[in-house]
Amino acid sequence: MQITSTQNPRIKALLQLQQKSSYRREQQLFVVEGRRELMHCLSRGYRAETIFICPDILKAETEYDSLMKALPSCTTLDVSPNVYDRIAYRGGTEGVMAVMHMKEHGADILPAIGASLCHPPLYIVLEGVEKPGNLGAILRSADAAGADAVIVCDPLTDLYNPNLIRASLGGIFSVPTVACTGTECIRYLKQSGIRILTAQLQDSSLYYDTDMTVPTAIVMGTEATGLTQQWRDAADAHIRIPMLGILDSLNVSVSAAILMYEAVRQRENKL
Amino acid sequence: MQITSTQNPRIKALLQLQQKSSYRREQQLFVVEGRRELMHCLSRGYRAETIFICPDILKAETEYDSLMKALPSCTTLDVSPNVYDRIAYRGGTEGVMAVMHMKEHGADILPAIGASLCHPPLYIVLEGVEKPGNLGAILRSADAAGADAVIVCDPLTDLYNPNLIRASLGGIFSVPTVACTGTECIRYLKQSGIRILTAQLQDSSLYYDTDMTVPTAIVMGTEATGLTQQWRDAADAHIRIPMLGILDSLNVSVSAAILMYEAVRQRENKL
Repeated sequence: MQITSTQNPRIKALLQLQQKSSYRREQQLFVVEGRRELMHCLSRGYRAETIFICPDILKAETEYDSLMKALPSCTTLDVSPNVYDRIAYRGGTEGVMAVMHMKEHGADILPAIGASLCHPPLYIVLEGVEKPGNLGAILRSADAAGADAVIVCDPLTDLYNPNLIRASLGGIFSVPTVACTGTECIRYLKQSGIRILTAQLQDSSLYYDTDMTVPTAIVMGTEATGLTQQWRDAADAHIRIPMLGILDSLNVSVSAAILMYEAVRQRENKL
Repeated sequence: MQITSTQNPRIKALLQLQQKSSYRREQQLFVVEGRRELMHCLSRGYRAETIFICPDILKAETEYDSLMKALPSCTTLDVSPNVYDRIAYRGGTEGVMAVMHMKEHGADILPAIGASLCHPPLYIVLEGVEKPGNLGAILRSADAAGADAVIVCDPLTDLYNPNLIRASLGGIFSVPTVACTGTECIRYLKQSGIRILTAQLQDSSLYYDTDMTVPTAIVMGTEATGLTQQWRDAADAHIRIPMLGILDSLNVSVSAAILMYEAVRQRENKL
């Protein structure tokens, strides 16, 4: 039976999950869209609650068959093209989306992340990042740079915001992500002997003159206001990216990528 | 006399300039919004055609006075808050925008850019970048990294697209920018002895193992299709950013920033 009305209760619930952070939190569910993103999500141990397929959009039969084989056994619903158009957040044409169960992201998962590593950890810590798109972009780069976790302190956006998921291209699923308070994060980093490098101008060294081969947390604030005093006080060193033009800041996701890849470079050259 | 209607011919022309690439090209004019962007633009030798001020939004009188002193002598028009709200592209509240004359950006300005430098040039070459926001973001990073020019080959967007200007935060004015064909660009780089490093996977070296202290052009294609054969053939070396996660690409503006800052690092360390 194909769902042909957006008044269907399952469709209404899905739209709520896309639109309302509070509803996502209450239900502990979120929406993932597109075949590749869904596969990334499943491969990282997320569990599907309901899968929505639009066979008319997923035209090629082989793709449809191979997709159906790859899907876990959970409720799978057919939707009409009209309904799919209405629920597809990014106006994509892939014809598959799913409601997924959230994972745990509290500070208490930090020790397990640390224990799973066989190299000096590289963590990216973000304080007060406001735009879901920026956080998603950082997660995409963190996946690429092989960062061991992204820790979002006192977050102003929820981790399953559709813009964040989209901008991360799946990085939100592949990179261990923690949302906690600054105090919890600092306590963990200090206890674990992880060096705290804060991105700030005052009393700073150039980032490429700073050793990142040791256990390292790179901490970044917002473009507008930078880091709070709590983090400035907790820092083991301050690092800066040289600004050689007339502008006074880089985009936060660009800065994060430059700093992460400097850690990659230093660690590879040390091998 | 304050302009209070969006039917005013000056206002209609301004809206056309914001919305239509073809009208911008025809008139050789574009729109800049916000005090800081306007100041960057003026400081880089752009000429204003008309300045629009909304005194009710530019509330603080001292700011108004200092702004008026800083402005060049050209037609300055007062607009009502209603009209300003309608013409402010980014919904900003700064209360100042201007119609500016375009500069020349053809390949024939390349020799003058090269002649003005007293260090080995660092050029960023972009082929087929589609999104104005990405190009703007690259210009912002290029300003920060002190790149000597951004060369856009066979551009699919015009340089004065409002999204591009906004994303560049003024980088479009501070960084010499050239729009030309790939053939023109390759000819100039070859004639000038500038090493062409193309970002591509095939037969590539890691970017941080590649010398960027010599005269260098870093060439990047689109995320989707990469570089054309013309550029692959023209390359002196191929460079790649290692991808250590599950995703297969970085955002093009992020990649550009990582590569530019590697040049900064190498050049600083060589000093």
